[in-house]
Amino acid sequence: MPILNKDMTLCISLAARPSNIGTRFHNYLYDELGLDFIYKAFTTTDLPAAVGGVRALGIRGCSVSMPFKEDVIALVDRMDPSATAIDSVNTIVNDDGVLTAYNTDYLAVAHLLKEHQVPAGSSVMLRGSGGMAKAVAAALKDSGFSEVTIVARNEVTGTKLAGLYGSQWRPEPGEARADLLINVTPLGMAGADEDALSFDAETIAEARTVFDVVAFPSETPLIKAARAAGKPVITGAEVIALQAAEQFAPYTGVRPTPEQVRAAGEFSRA
Amino acid sequence: MPILNKDMTLCISLAARPSNIGTRFHNYLYDELGLDFIYKAFTTTDLPAAVGGVRALGIRGCSVSMPFKEDVIALVDRMDPSATAIDSVNTIVNDDGVLTAYNTDYLAVAHLLKEHQVPAGSSVMLRGSGGMAKAVAAALKDSGFSEVTIVARNEVTGTKLAGLYGSQWRPEPGEARADLLINVTPLGMAGADEDALSFDAETIAEARTVFDVVAFPSETPLIKAARAAGKPVITGAEVIALQAAEQFAPYTGVRPTPEQVRAAGEFSRA
Repeated sequence: MPILNKDMTLCISLAARPSNIGTRFHNYLYDELGLDFIYKAFTTTDLPAAVGGVRALGIRGCSVSMPFKEDVIALVDRMDPSATAIDSVNTIVNDDGVLTAYNTDYLAVAHLLKEHQVPAGSSVMLRGSGGMAKAVAAALKDSGFSEVTIVARNEVTGTKLAGLYGSQWRPEPGEARADLLINVTPLGMAGADEDALSFDAETIAEARTVFDVVAFPSETPLIKAARAAGKPVITGAEVIALQAAEQFAPYTGVRPTPEQVRAAGEFSRA
Repeated sequence: MPILNKDMTLCISLAARPSNIGTRFHNYLYDELGLDFIYKAFTTTDLPAAVGGVRALGIRGCSVSMPFKEDVIALVDRMDPSATAIDSVNTIVNDDGVLTAYNTDYLAVAHLLKEHQVPAGSSVMLRGSGGMAKAVAAALKDSGFSEVTIVARNEVTGTKLAGLYGSQWRPEPGEARADLLINVTPLGMAGADEDALSFDAETIAEARTVFDVVAFPSETPLIKAARAAGKPVITGAEVIALQAAEQFAPYTGVRPTPEQVRAAGEFSRA
């Protein structure tokens, strides 16, 4: 292990319950790209002091996870449009004490819709109404998708999210069909409803593209069923790697190649 | 390079102009001892926010250098006797948000006087009246040395320091002699007065032990002259390594062996 030096740039994350994914993703790429950076996850019970510490210590970047994504807005100096689009922050970039907030979940979803060439004219069924569903709904709207239905059992959050981005709302998929199916619920997630299929076989059969935000596992029942039906898929593994890559670029000034992002993503999940 | 992980414990330093010594010393020993720690130097222009960040981020330890050693007193929760002895802090240990301040320069000097078996009955000439001279004067007094003369051209700081610890003061060594000679001025330091001898040959000839706090180089003209005269010496390299070891122990709960401290000290200076 080469000995660390005083001039290395530190990036961190703040979460109530830190995972190892960001730490592994970023450090893997620092090593691959020969960057004089280190990354480490932190937790805190005092968000204002932690963010003050980021500023005062010159910590270059700070990933922000639950439950800090909204509270941190009051503590930064500037909001990037990606963060104002959903009033939620998952990334802070520190330029000589000036903190700019981003939401790279939003950026990653918008990027993936484009990369996978999903036509903006597609009809969309988006299942879920939490924070990540908001990022997806906003990215859809800002990418020109106008025919979006929010599917959420919770009427309060479902209608609220639909109202925010001009979508329809319905409590269950029912007989509805759409070109693009997106799951942003825990259905199919390990430790949650891992055997649950978030859209049924008929709905999948009539779709053109299937997108599951669940990342653990990324081969959810929905993704498996879509692959079996020959549908192009977008996986949660892609989202989680790309949102980290969207942090990596402003932190370091270096944009990793898609191949490097994929390799770092695989490493981070191992 | 093994990839860093989220559970690693971070220790840092705060200084206006960070050196690489602490970063190299601590990381060398973390590696040697297989500890899941990392260490990095930082600077700041906002000490209260930086120390608040240490607390809020759970940064385990923080070395404190110029110009923060006094200002940091108001920001910690507890003062160890080593810090109250000289009203100066060079180390903060964070126990679950409770910050305790130490002065390991004081601890290192006291330890070295004991390790080198300098008798407390020795007469002492201490040249210098700055912050480090204060640490040395306090360590001398608390180690039982009662016959101490402060030699300092600056009458204000010289008489003040002498008054604090019950010593005598004189502006120049002149005809004075002592068993233990200690230099705590920049005389002999690289880039300062590197050819200057802080005590003359006659004074060295009549001394029993010669101690130079200058660490760069540690083979100062004073140390060289003392070695040539066959006198036991205590060098600044020993002070700087031991004060770091005195930080290392409370940060990690592991006390490195003298051999490990010596090796880390050599590595840190390379």
